Amino acid sequence: MENLGKHVPIPLYFQIKTRLLELIENGQFKPGDQVPSERELTERFSVSRMTARQALTELESQGYLYRIQGKGTFVATPKLEQPLAGLTSFTEDMRRRGLAPGARVLTAQEAPAGKKAAKLLGIAETATIFRLERLRLADGEPMALETSHIPVALCPGLLEADFRDQSLYRILAERCDTRLVKADQSLEAVPATAYDAEMLHVREGTPLLLMERVSRDASDKPVEFVRSLYRGDRYRFTTELIRREESL
Amino acid sequence: MENLGKHVPIPLYFQIKTRLLELIENGQFKPGDQVPSERELTERFSVSRMTARQALTELESQGYLYRIQGKGTFVATPKLEQPLAGLTSFTEDMRRRGLAPGARVLTAQEAPAGKKAAKLLGIAETATIFRLERLRLADGEPMALETSHIPVALCPGLLEADFRDQSLYRILAERCDTRLVKADQSLEAVPATAYDAEMLHVREGTPLLLMERVSRDASDKPVEFVRSLYRGDRYRFTTELIRREESL
Repeated sequence: MENLGKHVPIPLYFQIKTRLLELIENGQFKPGDQVPSERELTERFSVSRMTARQALTELESQGYLYRIQGKGTFVATPKLEQPLAGLTSFTEDMRRRGLAPGARVLTAQEAPAGKKAAKLLGIAETATIFRLERLRLADGEPMALETSHIPVALCPGLLEADFRDQSLYRILAERCDTRLVKADQSLEAVPATAYDAEMLHVREGTPLLLMERVSRDASDKPVEFVRSLYRGDRYRFTTELIRREESL
Repeated sequence: MENLGKHVPIPLYFQIKTRLLELIENGQFKPGDQVPSERELTERFSVSRMTARQALTELESQGYLYRIQGKGTFVATPKLEQPLAGLTSFTEDMRRRGLAPGARVLTAQEAPAGKKAAKLLGIAETATIFRLERLRLADGEPMALETSHIPVALCPGLLEADFRDQSLYRILAERCDTRLVKADQSLEAVPATAYDAEMLHVREGTPLLLMERVSRDASDKPVEFVRSLYRGDRYRFTTELIRREESL
């Protein structure tokens, strides 16, 4: 039996969680390894089953562990690190990582822009856009739900392209000689709706990273508005910062 | 009664949600305005109470609406936009926005670094760090839970400083002539633990933005490791991207 600090003001479940996390971060538990069950933790730390469960549940909901019904609880692969600095496509990002990029096209249509896309793309609400909704896969696993909006006037005929395993950016370059060189982007944490959850194979309410991006060509014209929902349990965005001189 | 598209394959709750969202984004419903109740939506769109509730619940959990028990449902203030590009402190960010920054110090202690902070700060696990956990406030409202770790050897005596309404960066500059000029940073979406939820006045499981940052001085020495949990319903990070030339 291992000892927990029972006289310190740190909840027992939290102490167990911290111990398990250390073993994962040290590499003593590796991705795919089975971790001790609720019952084993109960005995090892002489705590209640509730306490052991809370430690495992929090580690699971934070993406460190995953459960397989009837088999046990296992260490998850670390989140994918995604540099925020470059304007790259999902296809490029996955290839760089050695994962096979894939896409399931959910919607491909020409439709009126509507208020939000019109405002962001600088076009009339009634202007026609090409709207492409894709489920993005890495080695077959759903990673992101991505909806692109492109004014049809900028690149006609996109409806005929095959978006299953090709980068939209490559298609834009090849068909329309359009290259995206800069973008404004935002990142938020949002709960998965019932639809998102079904598509991404997560539970409703699970935290997702919502990225919205307006990409422009060299003449500063907005070409694409894309709204992407990344799985929070699989993604981690990284960036490098430089301090501008200013008063503290 | 307004008509919904009952013969299109878009769920009715989603159509109501979209209508309400348009009214918010148009500015017809402004922050603080009361929106129609479940009962009013039920009549207006002739849908079931369940359908009306689902539309309101999703808008609430996405941070567009908030409920006051016994009073009704109201339009929330838009999320705070936080540029990711600059290495700025919470205090500076809030002042720039015209909000009064504040902090409740939850823990201020000297303690051994431990594995994670030691690795990120390039010090021994047994080296002493100053650990400062603060609840960050904007106009009195809890916005983020921030834990800073600073090697005591780099700036002794921080325990005596007053962190309630002063920037840690300013204190580091004034007391120890230490200026942070660059940082590596990551962003993730994580669910609020019971503790986070209590501190930030949100529900357990609510999506939070977890930011981890290692800041360095001009000689490239790591000075601070900070782990911040921002409320997902109140924060939105923005950034600007430039495409590096590379193959598509």
